[in-house]
Amino acid sequence: LKKYNVILSGGVGSRLWPMSRKSKPKQYLPIFNGQTLFQLTAERNKTICDQFIVVGNRENYQLSRRDLQANDIMDFVEIIEACPRNTAAAIAFAAFAVQPQDLLFITPSDHLIQSGEAYSSCVLRAFELAESGYIVTFGLKPTRPETGFGYIESKGEQVLSLREKPDAQMAKSFLNEGNFLWNSGMFCFKAGVFLEELKKFEPKVYESAKKVFIQKQNDFLDEKLSMEIPNISVDYAVMERTDKIKVVPAFFEWSDLGSFESVYDYLLSQNHPVDSAGNMVIGTAIHTEFLGVKETIFVYTDDAILVLKKENAQQVKNIYEKLQGQKAKLT
Amino acid sequence: LKKYNVILSGGVGSRLWPMSRKSKPKQYLPIFNGQTLFQLTAERNKTICDQFIVVGNRENYQLSRRDLQANDIMDFVEIIEACPRNTAAAIAFAAFAVQPQDLLFITPSDHLIQSGEAYSSCVLRAFELAESGYIVTFGLKPTRPETGFGYIESKGEQVLSLREKPDAQMAKSFLNEGNFLWNSGMFCFKAGVFLEELKKFEPKVYESAKKVFIQKQNDFLDEKLSMEIPNISVDYAVMERTDKIKVVPAFFEWSDLGSFESVYDYLLSQNHPVDSAGNMVIGTAIHTEFLGVKETIFVYTDDAILVLKKENAQQVKNIYEKLQGQKAKLT
Repeated sequence: LKKYNVILSGGVGSRLWPMSRKSKPKQYLPIFNGQTLFQLTAERNKTICDQFIVVGNRENYQLSRRDLQANDIMDFVEIIEACPRNTAAAIAFAAFAVQPQDLLFITPSDHLIQSGEAYSSCVLRAFELAESGYIVTFGLKPTRPETGFGYIESKGEQVLSLREKPDAQMAKSFLNEGNFLWNSGMFCFKAGVFLEELKKFEPKVYESAKKVFIQKQNDFLDEKLSMEIPNISVDYAVMERTDKIKVVPAFFEWSDLGSFESVYDYLLSQNHPVDSAGNMVIGTAIHTEFLGVKETIFVYTDDAILVLKKENAQQVKNIYEKLQGQKAKLT
Repeated sequence: LKKYNVILSGGVGSRLWPMSRKSKPKQYLPIFNGQTLFQLTAERNKTICDQFIVVGNRENYQLSRRDLQANDIMDFVEIIEACPRNTAAAIAFAAFAVQPQDLLFITPSDHLIQSGEAYSSCVLRAFELAESGYIVTFGLKPTRPETGFGYIESKGEQVLSLREKPDAQMAKSFLNEGNFLWNSGMFCFKAGVFLEELKKFEPKVYESAKKVFIQKQNDFLDEKLSMEIPNISVDYAVMERTDKIKVVPAFFEWSDLGSFESVYDYLLSQNHPVDSAGNMVIGTAIHTEFLGVKETIFVYTDDAILVLKKENAQQVKNIYEKLQGQKAKLT
């Protein structure tokens, strides 16, 4: 019985454009004392897990390798996707790569988490539950009525319901209830248990992902076959439907750094400078003055600049999508 | 009797920081098809006047020389101030440098003016009036209730009153009246007539400026002596008090490019790009996106950046003044 940390690293972090790019997704930016979020993820988990499985893609597997090797992690399994097929398939590939009784601890590669006792004890508890055959989610104590996350209605480790991203009013009521936790995108289960549930609820995903996995060439998946896999999230495919679900309430420091709003909050906590109107510069040491604007973030890179009112941080994705059509080399 | 164009070039254009600097004032930026405002001023006047007098300072006289020589203007008088003593003294120096009956056409070096028939005929009319012993101002038809300029209450060429910079309500009423013109900062008179009036109204300015002028070393004025000259504008010293004043109503295209608001309007008229929310980039070709902000101007230079809400353009001066104390090398 082995414990694997499955690092999902397919994302681009398009809401962090222009800091994050296809060729340089946010999890590979060495901006945390010289370390990347990917490296921090591996560092955090290497004493808790026996081995790593990286589910990446053709564009970034070299970056993952570089990061792991820079941290002296030489023993890892790679699964290199040809095209993004969402999290249900990505996790299925990892499950096919190991023995049914092996434990998988699934983590995004681009979240910022305070490692330490609070973290380790949560993960160890998740492994215990997983060994008993449960599918475990991690529920974070919400600190604001966030509309960008799914929620877990909980009672201790019991999951009463999973909720998709709420609207603002719903998010507020979730916050008030007290037993609604953020769905962190981290999971833990036996490979075989996950695959059974996936087969039961989404047999097409199961079968097509299996076919792709079996026919992989070295670590590379076939693009044409991959396109036949339904594009479905693991939440929808399994988490919202299985009765084997449990939640480990998690109290460690956590940020998904998913938008410039959370990056702003994080940088503030690190004493990154802001002016008296709450304006912030990211990406350049050039002296910058703001006049007549508030809580505006100026993001500088060599070939693209963003002037962003913080409250519009979620819409950066739209700029990214527009540019994919018009100026793809800037994405 | 000679006609001189006196080009006043002592200003820094601090409201255009960071585009304009002490070492690179706005009149020396080659941003008008490769020409500077200083060059355009000289070009515009070289067929109308016999010779140039440049009143500059220690920091910029080399820039003036370079600009004039680049335009094949080799014959000019230089007066190099040691410290800024305002326009009354600057013009007095020029008047001391010529014969009393010579005509002086005083112009800023940093305004953008459409040369051509409308312009030439105004200036020629001013010379006629100046030859008859008048002190001539140029009155521009106001296009908006601007609070940054002085106004001339006029009746034909007759000046009823000169008004200092009005508040917003006053400016609106001036605009409605129809006979209030903007005081352009251009003047025309006989050197001797000006000096007589200056001696009458501000004898201290007259005497101290004369002393400084007589004791100049080559073209350089002495700093210690200069500090004794009262710091007074020509409007206050002479224009508002003399009964020899006339106004030539001027209908040529004119902008003082005095703030980023007028620079913005000018650039728009030149089809400089703005996005759908009216945001504009100045100074870089790096692809720039704005999100959640409107009519915001992003000004880029190699060592300083400004993110400016257009309506706050007048306050850029405050940033400049703050930086003079804190980070003088950025001014």
